Amino acid sequence: MVETKKSLAASAAVNLARLREKKPLVHNITNYVVMNFTANCLLSLGASPVMAHAESEIGDISSISSALVLNIGTLSPAWIESMVKAAGKARAINKPFVLDPVGAGASVYRTETARRLLEEKPSVVRGNASEIMALAGGEAKTKGVDSLEKSEAAVKCAEIIAEKTGGIVVVSGEKDFICSALKRTEVLNGVEMMGRITGMGCVATSVIGAFLAVVDPFDAAVSGMAVMGICGETAFEKASSPGSFMAAFLDSLYEITPEEIGKRIKIIEHENR
Amino acid sequence: MVETKKSLAASAAVNLARLREKKPLVHNITNYVVMNFTANCLLSLGASPVMAHAESEIGDISSISSALVLNIGTLSPAWIESMVKAAGKARAINKPFVLDPVGAGASVYRTETARRLLEEKPSVVRGNASEIMALAGGEAKTKGVDSLEKSEAAVKCAEIIAEKTGGIVVVSGEKDFICSALKRTEVLNGVEMMGRITGMGCVATSVIGAFLAVVDPFDAAVSGMAVMGICGETAFEKASSPGSFMAAFLDSLYEITPEEIGKRIKIIEHENR
Amino acid sequence: MVETKKSLAASAAVNLARLREKKPLVHNITNYVVMNFTANCLLSLGASPVMAHAESEIGDISSISSALVLNIGTLSPAWIESMVKAAGKARAINKPFVLDPVGAGASVYRTETARRLLEEKPSVVRGNASEIMALAGGEAKTKGVDSLEKSEAAVKCAEIIAEKTGGIVVVSGEKDFICSALKRTEVLNGVEMMGRITGMGCVATSVIGAFLAVVDPFDAAVSGMAVMGICGETAFEKASSPGSFMAAFLDSLYEITPEEIGKRIKIIEHENR
Repeated sequence: MVETKKSLAASAAVNLARLREKKPLVHNITNYVVMNFTANCLLSLGASPVMAHAESEIGDISSISSALVLNIGTLSPAWIESMVKAAGKARAINKPFVLDPVGAGASVYRTETARRLLEEKPSVVRGNASEIMALAGGEAKTKGVDSLEKSEAAVKCAEIIAEKTGGIVVVSGEKDFICSALKRTEVLNGVEMMGRITGMGCVATSVIGAFLAVVDPFDAAVSGMAVMGICGETAFEKASSPGSFMAAFLDSLYEITPEEIGKRIKIIEHENR
Repeated sequence: MVETKKSLAASAAVNLARLREKKPLVHNITNYVVMNFTANCLLSLGASPVMAHAESEIGDISSISSALVLNIGTLSPAWIESMVKAAGKARAINKPFVLDPVGAGASVYRTETARRLLEEKPSVVRGNASEIMALAGGEAKTKGVDSLEKSEAAVKCAEIIAEKTGGIVVVSGEKDFICSALKRTEVLNGVEMMGRITGMGCVATSVIGAFLAVVDPFDAAVSGMAVMGICGETAFEKASSPGSFMAAFLDSLYEITPEEIGKRIKIIEHENR
Repeated sequence: MVETKKSLAASAAVNLARLREKKPLVHNITNYVVMNFTANCLLSLGASPVMAHAESEIGDISSISSALVLNIGTLSPAWIESMVKAAGKARAINKPFVLDPVGAGASVYRTETARRLLEEKPSVVRGNASEIMALAGGEAKTKGVDSLEKSEAAVKCAEIIAEKTGGIVVVSGEKDFICSALKRTEVLNGVEMMGRITGMGCVATSVIGAFLAVVDPFDAAVSGMAVMGICGETAFEKASSPGSFMAAFLDSLYEITPEEIGKRIKIIEHENR
């Protein structure tokens, strides 16, 4: 166990600069609740979002975008087919994609859809503890789309999924765990107020999606969670109630600098487990 | 007629404390326009929202949630079927539900859907004057989703509906009327600026939904409308233009205390009519 | 070429006053991402928005609204049919309508849908340079829903479309071009930050829709773009990061006065081309 290794912190700072330079087009098939906030967060950070869910345009949008985000927050049959198609297309052209299994465990429909998309081997999966546990086949205490478990409780499940997909699995919570089959990193940034804003987890997933366009999945997941947590902290320094916090969070995504990441990132790396 | 009876004011304060302690899971099948704002308002207040509309998961989500909110603001056939199914399930397991007949009177499609859902006997119906009048079968001057009638004009219609469903009917407007078949309470809090924010009525409905999880329907409706009106007032003291008012309103939902309710609530009770 | 002709500037000021007096009901069939922000912008400005997409209610909503906005930002088959039906109904009753071809050029599906709606001869079309070029049949560099071309590059295409439809075509960008088959006006207001907010273009389209309810299409397009640009400027004077800018922009739409338009509008008219 190595504490706050320079390399990963430095890497997150560099990744932000690269993201802003490339302004990657990120294709989101996501839920109705968070579409606007997600698009605005991606724009604030420096990426370029496109929301498109019609099966007829999945091919075209897939071919021009640099990363794919699949989010099952408000499902219906046609959307699932489009997600499966988009995932298949992403794999075919070697484009990274990230899955957000919102509410897995809360209904059989969500759990099964999330598992079906897991078979497409996403580069990254990001969920809260309940969702990751449900995805791994465990029994999880869930409360709709919120978790009743601490993120620590789902690390084992995250590692099982990572082994199966060959990708990265993130369990977010008070501590964020970024797990591959071989290593694990904790990001300790963030504030509780983030849980009072709908879709903060969904935004984290899309931010990871933006980083996937410029760096490998493990690094993308660490950078994404670090940026989210740090922006949560700086926003909370400006605004401590949810409405003004939301605006301040968007401001922070726009204002955050690579230097600020280097200074504020709190990570712990665990290797060779 | 009794003015500002201590009991109801005290009750609203206690109900807020209970809501925050229970953090109820509120299942919303609502319109696209307000999903994000509604979810954030519920989170700010202390409830836990879940948005789910797919027929395949209505059963599961119904069984884990404490109250149901049905809102017909942006209809389509599949959504109607899910709403009917969710209402039926709610009745079967004795779970309270609230109906928002957005735009009833503006199209036959909306009026008929609202009436179909009314047959499921919602615990509470909340609408503006036009909507309640249309629902009762009257001729109402409507302007899309806004009312051209004062809330007073719809009280008779509200009482007719309340008699038919055995539930509570709220007509919101400058004055909010909460009507059962036997009694009527007026809540006089609120500011005009609330009418400049899309979905404020929809949010009121969902806030009533959250209170339904902790208290009986009449009390829930009074508490919900009081919290909305008071938060509108405190938000307007901080911000008098719509964009900053919206953020301030979310802040107010988070900051409002039981004591503040007790101090600011303005109600008039009418009994034994 | 006449610089800053008094008439158009004065006209925009008068049009705002008329819009606020009439409070027109504007029917929007628009995309999921921007529904909330669009509705709030229309309310802030003084119009009354209604969002309705179900084919079964297109007839009723069409007959009570004063203008129609069609926006293809998040397409699916049922929505396209409703848009076609609404456009046909608008033409039949001589109601003005405006088309926003979001992402035309990014997928064949969007380009073809936009062209199909163009055949309904919209009173106004508003898009960025890529979208207008794609609509005219040209090759355009596009990046999802963002343009990689300057607005100047699409003026010829805008004029070709205007000739075909007999309506007005707006190319928005750093400079906004409002083109009919016979004349062209440039609006030079606005700030770059507007490009960091999702759906600012969609809002511009809906604001033009609101002006269509009170004045002829050319004037409506000029007034709409001027109001957008000026509100962008005043908002940016208050807030220079995206989250607080968004709130400030809504505030500006509410606060803008006819006098302010007269003072700040920057237009160049080109006639008799």
